[in-house]
Amino acid sequence: MSEPPSSHPVSTAGPVHLIGSGLLGASIGLALTRAGVPVTLEDASPAAAALARDVGAGDLVTPGEEGRAEVRVVVIAVPPDVTADVVLTALRRFPDAVVTDVASVKTIVLRELWEAAEAGTISPADLARYVGSHPMAGRERSGAAAADPDLFAGRPWVLVPHPGSDPAALLAVRNLAVDLAATPVRMAAEDHDRAVAAVSHVPQVMASVLAARLLDAPESALALAGQGLRDTTRIAASDPRLWAAILVGNAGPVADLLAAARDDLTRLEEALRGAAEHGPLSPGAMAAASTTVDRGNLGVSRIPGKHGGARRDYAEVEVLVPDSPGELGRLFVAVGELGVNVEDFAIEHASRQKVGLATIAVLPDAAQRLADGLHEKGWRVVGA
Amino acid sequence: MSEPPSSHPVSTAGPVHLIGSGLLGASIGLALTRAGVPVTLEDASPAAAALARDVGAGDLVTPGEEGRAEVRVVVIAVPPDVTADVVLTALRRFPDAVVTDVASVKTIVLRELWEAAEAGTISPADLARYVGSHPMAGRERSGAAAADPDLFAGRPWVLVPHPGSDPAALLAVRNLAVDLAATPVRMAAEDHDRAVAAVSHVPQVMASVLAARLLDAPESALALAGQGLRDTTRIAASDPRLWAAILVGNAGPVADLLAAARDDLTRLEEALRGAAEHGPLSPGAMAAASTTVDRGNLGVSRIPGKHGGARRDYAEVEVLVPDSPGELGRLFVAVGELGVNVEDFAIEHASRQKVGLATIAVLPDAAQRLADGLHEKGWRVVGA
Repeated sequence: MSEPPSSHPVSTAGPVHLIGSGLLGASIGLALTRAGVPVTLEDASPAAAALARDVGAGDLVTPGEEGRAEVRVVVIAVPPDVTADVVLTALRRFPDAVVTDVASVKTIVLRELWEAAEAGTISPADLARYVGSHPMAGRERSGAAAADPDLFAGRPWVLVPHPGSDPAALLAVRNLAVDLAATPVRMAAEDHDRAVAAVSHVPQVMASVLAARLLDAPESALALAGQGLRDTTRIAASDPRLWAAILVGNAGPVADLLAAARDDLTRLEEALRGAAEHGPLSPGAMAAASTTVDRGNLGVSRIPGKHGGARRDYAEVEVLVPDSPGELGRLFVAVGELGVNVEDFAIEHASRQKVGLATIAVLPDAAQRLADGLHEKGWRVVGA
Repeated sequence: MSEPPSSHPVSTAGPVHLIGSGLLGASIGLALTRAGVPVTLEDASPAAAALARDVGAGDLVTPGEEGRAEVRVVVIAVPPDVTADVVLTALRRFPDAVVTDVASVKTIVLRELWEAAEAGTISPADLARYVGSHPMAGRERSGAAAADPDLFAGRPWVLVPHPGSDPAALLAVRNLAVDLAATPVRMAAEDHDRAVAAVSHVPQVMASVLAARLLDAPESALALAGQGLRDTTRIAASDPRLWAAILVGNAGPVADLLAAARDDLTRLEEALRGAAEHGPLSPGAMAAASTTVDRGNLGVSRIPGKHGGARRDYAEVEVLVPDSPGELGRLFVAVGELGVNVEDFAIEHASRQKVGLATIAVLPDAAQRLADGLHEKGWRVVGA
């Protein structure tokens, strides 16, 4: 296995000061601390700050008592609706530090900072030390207890400098992303916000609105649920307070896409009303339904595959696995013995049955060998 | 490992005649053939029928030359829009057989059959031999090449008798479901159609409409895609022709839920327009966004968990796994050595990085032992 992250040399020069010690802040603190970078932290909630300290995310400091002149980088990890205010305060409190934030929305933060600059609340020289950022990482759980120094590994980390940003500040934030094993990607604030509306914020809304349809369904209907429903609604379990601030903070781009989705739904609904009244051959009904699914086919095919590269066609081998300790282990040992690399893996547990269906994705030329080999070893390979 | 299905005794008395040899028909034929039940099959497409024969789903017969008097059960697995016609023909062609279909919509089929009975096209005695059904199983691939005798294992199989159905016919279809290892569930046609609208048809539409939003997104936006987008849009890859017939065939219940979803989207969109124009503190914006996500939380919590029972809270242990042959095998061997049963498993591959994040779900009291044990064995356990 790989070495722990502490063995990798890092470029970030500390001390780093963290403001906000939730999942993202504590994960950053944990990773930097392990890499040997001195980290101090504060949080509006003393209890949250203490928890972050306890998980190893950094040392607590009382505001006013931190070594202001020494701090080289300030990372702000607070909800999007208070981010700009905290950035402004931090630029004044830490006169020599590069300041970044990790909020999921960028335009609204930048707009508030510009308004402050125009009002003379902050000088252009101070604002030059700010570079926005957004690590594309998260999980359904929140808080420092769920912190994870590897949270950012291999994930895109969007860097959003403004026209007045100091190149040295951009480099410092870029180094921070690389030190946390993320892949830095530079984008303008508006491009970032439209992008995350499409790949993150609107998926959240659609999952939530879909899941809300289950509120009035009888239990007998829910008992028919399969993997499709589970996949499409998994993220509906996310935190309402955080997501409300994100959606409102990216209101324009999200509203535009919701309007387009609503128009699609309305068109289909009207066509289906016709079919409900006049029968399935009602003019336009089949066309509207087919176009809806067809366009979805095209849209989903644009999502890049594994490792962020072009989508690759893997072949899938399906195997029935008894639900008892060690069976998955036995399966993977068998796969390893056959010398086949697993490109992707999923297991679906059958409803009310003590058996799971494992789907092993492999390179196409290895699929037959894997299926035959597993079958010979006594596994129930589906279709073999 | 378990025995092959052929070792289980079956109740279904053959010969069984299959009309339609796509994924569902061929899977039924394959399972029955393996269980020793004689199966004949036909398909409007001779090529499709030949493929089903080649995968072992049954013997080909030329319509008119099948042993009509001998056939005990006829299973109709054709698209929903032609199902009723084929049922009517089958009831006449096979005067002693029980006839069932496996279409995903039931009310529209029953309505057409009643109309035929009222018009005198079919006698009540003949109609008594029909019982509708719907196995809740499927996959994104279609056709006999994807056939799978275990497709129905552990899945609900909805039985939809009509008021005139013969109890013996219901029993025969129930036996068929049990012989294929499915769990029979009895429902009225209208209840079935409303249930599948909520748990299957509307999720399909929402995934398709969400995926369509990606059509106009730049590549740089798609590169930010994470697991949330992948999960919410996976089923958007489904077959447009089949799904158009399903949606139109269940037009009323689907339209009702789409209207409710559209109203939710419209309310949120209007609130976000206000926030885009007047700022994030615009009245009602935070409340609308928060309510949307909140209701989604409640809806998703109603989906039953593993094995169709009550949702169970598993603890998750996350491990970083290098992307090379045998590593997952090594991981599962380690898990097996620790004596921990894997309740669920998922692997997410990090974007552009040769490392995957494995999430192992286990019973809560085993999580710490698993995390510590894997850590001791040299694995990079997240958060440990």
